Amino acid sequence: MKFISSPSNEVIKEVIKLHDKNKRKKLKKCIVEGWRLIQDAKENGIFIEKLIISKSLWNKRRDEILKSFSSYDLYIVEDNLMEKISLMETPPGIMGVFPLFLFPKWELLEEKNNKIVLFSDDIQDPGNLGTIIRIADGVGVDAVILSENTVDPYNYKVIRGSTGSIFRVPIWVSDKKTFIEFFKGWKVIIADPKGSKVYFQENLRESFVLILGNEAWGTRKEKYIDLDPILLKIPLREGVDSLNVSIAASVFLFEAQRQRYFEGGIKDE
Amino acid sequence: MKFISSPSNEVIKEVIKLHDKNKRKKLKKCIVEGWRLIQDAKENGIFIEKLIISKSLWNKRRDEILKSFSSYDLYIVEDNLMEKISLMETPPGIMGVFPLFLFPKWELLEEKNNKIVLFSDDIQDPGNLGTIIRIADGVGVDAVILSENTVDPYNYKVIRGSTGSIFRVPIWVSDKKTFIEFFKGWKVIIADPKGSKVYFQENLRESFVLILGNEAWGTRKEKYIDLDPILLKIPLREGVDSLNVSIAASVFLFEAQRQRYFEGGIKDE
Repeated sequence: MKFISSPSNEVIKEVIKLHDKNKRKKLKKCIVEGWRLIQDAKENGIFIEKLIISKSLWNKRRDEILKSFSSYDLYIVEDNLMEKISLMETPPGIMGVFPLFLFPKWELLEEKNNKIVLFSDDIQDPGNLGTIIRIADGVGVDAVILSENTVDPYNYKVIRGSTGSIFRVPIWVSDKKTFIEFFKGWKVIIADPKGSKVYFQENLRESFVLILGNEAWGTRKEKYIDLDPILLKIPLREGVDSLNVSIAASVFLFEAQRQRYFEGGIKDE
Repeated sequence: MKFISSPSNEVIKEVIKLHDKNKRKKLKKCIVEGWRLIQDAKENGIFIEKLIISKSLWNKRRDEILKSFSSYDLYIVEDNLMEKISLMETPPGIMGVFPLFLFPKWELLEEKNNKIVLFSDDIQDPGNLGTIIRIADGVGVDAVILSENTVDPYNYKVIRGSTGSIFRVPIWVSDKKTFIEFFKGWKVIIADPKGSKVYFQENLRESFVLILGNEAWGTRKEKYIDLDPILLKIPLREGVDSLNVSIAASVFLFEAQRQRYFEGGIKDE
């Protein structure tokens, strides 16, 4: 365990670098703040390189910290330093430095047996992506694949918004060419208000990929023409053009869950 | 039309007061910013007391403004004044002062024929409430009733988040006693992970009230015991405790929509 009081300490300098997306990529590390999230990561076997703890949290919860995290490199920092390196308005007082932990796991999708895959086509809002990852976890989605221009999944708002689900769901970035190559032959769905079919009229029991645009409604279907996508609409009252993308995702995913619940063809009610 | 350049002008002073919830209540007015929202309000017959327009927007879109809004009291203000009175980081340059426009409409619910009512039990996050109002509009909910401790619906984040749906959906505040009195005999639903029944196993074709807690999961069911509420769960994978309240709302509402789509008992697929 080490005590840090100087803002020019190497650990402090590294953490500040990790606020920036490009530097995270270069250093292959990211930061995660908050007791619950770090606990979640630990429980899911995510490697934690070091833990930085504010002096006041250390004084308050020393025993708990040693009990849960004694196997990690611990750094205790002055509270004003923690405020400097934290990305949150009210710093929770505990921060982990993690090697990047999201990697392609295409092998999970080799067998095409009732899989559900989400593809983010350039979703930009970190809150939306975090919420979608949380829903994906709740429903048991097999993979969330992100286009290269999607918001960085290591953005702290994504991590927080996922409430720890980012440590449980297989998530990775893929270029569009690889994505299209891999999913040829799959059922590929795009939410589109001009779709001729309503989403719940489609069989969602078999494997499918759902493409989510950076607005709720896919305007980019031309790019996926090689995947022969099905356009499905969510019925909405006149005057309402669209839904938030996380709401649209939840509508499809919970309908798939509902259909799969009645396996063997038991009908509803 | 009047030009304002002094920060001590009465209109400016009034608008600044309307940033505050309690003063909105006292003055019985609120503010709405943005061309699209103001247009939405106008189209839905909402009364607009006056419009305040920045000089740069006035110079750019004078003809359009006169075409759409000539029947209102127009005030043109210096851009730096608009920045002062706007609640947004990038002021859209157009702001309306509205008399408060949400009033109880219990009479809409007198006939109990396939109604859907949402009740917000102290939802605090303005983004969540806005999103819920947007979904309610899309699905055609009959009323959204807010407990007295719910976030103020005239909060600009609620108005923006609703993308104009706040002007279309009947929304009002009610104390809990009146709420409970009115809905005796209705089907009252609370989302609860300890519910014995899954939400899609319930008949949602007939009238119901869905109570949404200030977290997704109702911890306050004791308060509604007189309404004999049904606890319904949304199945989630182990380790995922909860959903965002707006996601939980959408799951129930779109399932009700789905069930009602197959009126007359046509089964799915």
